[in-house]
Amino acid sequence: MKRIYTGKTKDVYELEDGNYLLKFKDDMTGENGVFDPGANTVGLVMEGAGRAGLRLTKYFFERLHERNIPTHYIDADIEQATMTVAPADVFGHGLEVICRYRAAGSFLRRYGLYAKEGQPLDAFVEVTIKDDERQDPPISKAALEMLGILTAEEYDTLERLTKEISQVVKDELAKKGIELYDIKLEFGRLKSNGEVVLIDEISGGNMRAYKDGVYVEPLELERLILGD
Amino acid sequence: MKRIYTGKTKDVYELEDGNYLLKFKDDMTGENGVFDPGANTVGLVMEGAGRAGLRLTKYFFERLHERNIPTHYIDADIEQATMTVAPADVFGHGLEVICRYRAAGSFLRRYGLYAKEGQPLDAFVEVTIKDDERQDPPISKAALEMLGILTAEEYDTLERLTKEISQVVKDELAKKGIELYDIKLEFGRLKSNGEVVLIDEISGGNMRAYKDGVYVEPLELERLILGD
Repeated sequence: MKRIYTGKTKDVYELEDGNYLLKFKDDMTGENGVFDPGANTVGLVMEGAGRAGLRLTKYFFERLHERNIPTHYIDADIEQATMTVAPADVFGHGLEVICRYRAAGSFLRRYGLYAKEGQPLDAFVEVTIKDDERQDPPISKAALEMLGILTAEEYDTLERLTKEISQVVKDELAKKGIELYDIKLEFGRLKSNGEVVLIDEISGGNMRAYKDGVYVEPLELERLILGD
Repeated sequence: MKRIYTGKTKDVYELEDGNYLLKFKDDMTGENGVFDPGANTVGLVMEGAGRAGLRLTKYFFERLHERNIPTHYIDADIEQATMTVAPADVFGHGLEVICRYRAAGSFLRRYGLYAKEGQPLDAFVEVTIKDDERQDPPISKAALEMLGILTAEEYDTLERLTKEISQVVKDELAKKGIELYDIKLEFGRLKSNGEVVLIDEISGGNMRAYKDGVYVEPLELERLILGD
């Protein structure tokens, strides 16, 4: 199999049958050893982080499958820290879609003049461009369409799916007394038929979660949701 | 009369009759002596810049008045470099509304991964928050509404007026063989009835204009449009 992409926290291989294999790494985004889901650099390496991320991803993708929410997920091998997925293309050079229930992170860095930390935000969806050099700028539906990154119809699908998926994750966390502040998703078009589906992963590294007012680290989140 | 606001390029006074008086200064935004309409600092002082900006503003506001496009404009005194306007409140702490016909400036700084300098943009409207500390971040209609800065209806009015006003300016420049790349407008609610109207100024300092492929400086623009 051929490596087709090397990411910060995972690598992507193309399998003989045309499917893709995602290899989850123990690298986590952040700076100077401190985890930050919004960071653009690998900030720390934590043994078992890859497998923990995959276990959560498998769990959430299966919950989405039960609800007929389309994803690229096919299968996972926890021991190998690999996930088999249907091949999909990202929009442009990749977008991040964020759903926010409380103000934190880049939302406050941008709109701190009008928003307080932790303020409720009612499933607010925003899209940012994956562009490390330009600090992942936010982009509007109109700009995405004008620049040919996606169509207005695809944007609407992506926004609707984002709210549905985020609500599923929020409800799963709530069962364990954990509150979801925000979550970052990625979407793509299936190579087979162009359908807009959730891709990448859903793990502690993609979200901010709080329990009793205290931030829950990604590995701790996996333990709280799935047990040990 | 009482000074109620000190801006980078103009000061605002309250008149006895309740109207406001804008005093145009010779300060221009930019850095290290180089003019930049997108800059947040006063970069240079140019004698006559205030009066030139006011002459253009008066000219454009009168053209808008002829077309029944609502503004805060009442009268201007070129010699004194002052403009009398109806009192209005800005949205939140102030917004900037940009209409783009070609890619330049902050649009490229944000979306340079997908856009080339000078690429046509079809009257693309975007709103940014006036917040020097956070580098004037762009903000979506949904976020503006959620944060209580303006209503969805006010946003639609503001977007429509922006396209109409920008087209008027674009046409005026075209008569002199000048091409408008982008223009930055400000809106407010009239204190009298809450109507959304154009406020502030329309001068060379608010736009990027090119003639025969060469950038036209603000003072030169005033000379080209109004003659000497």
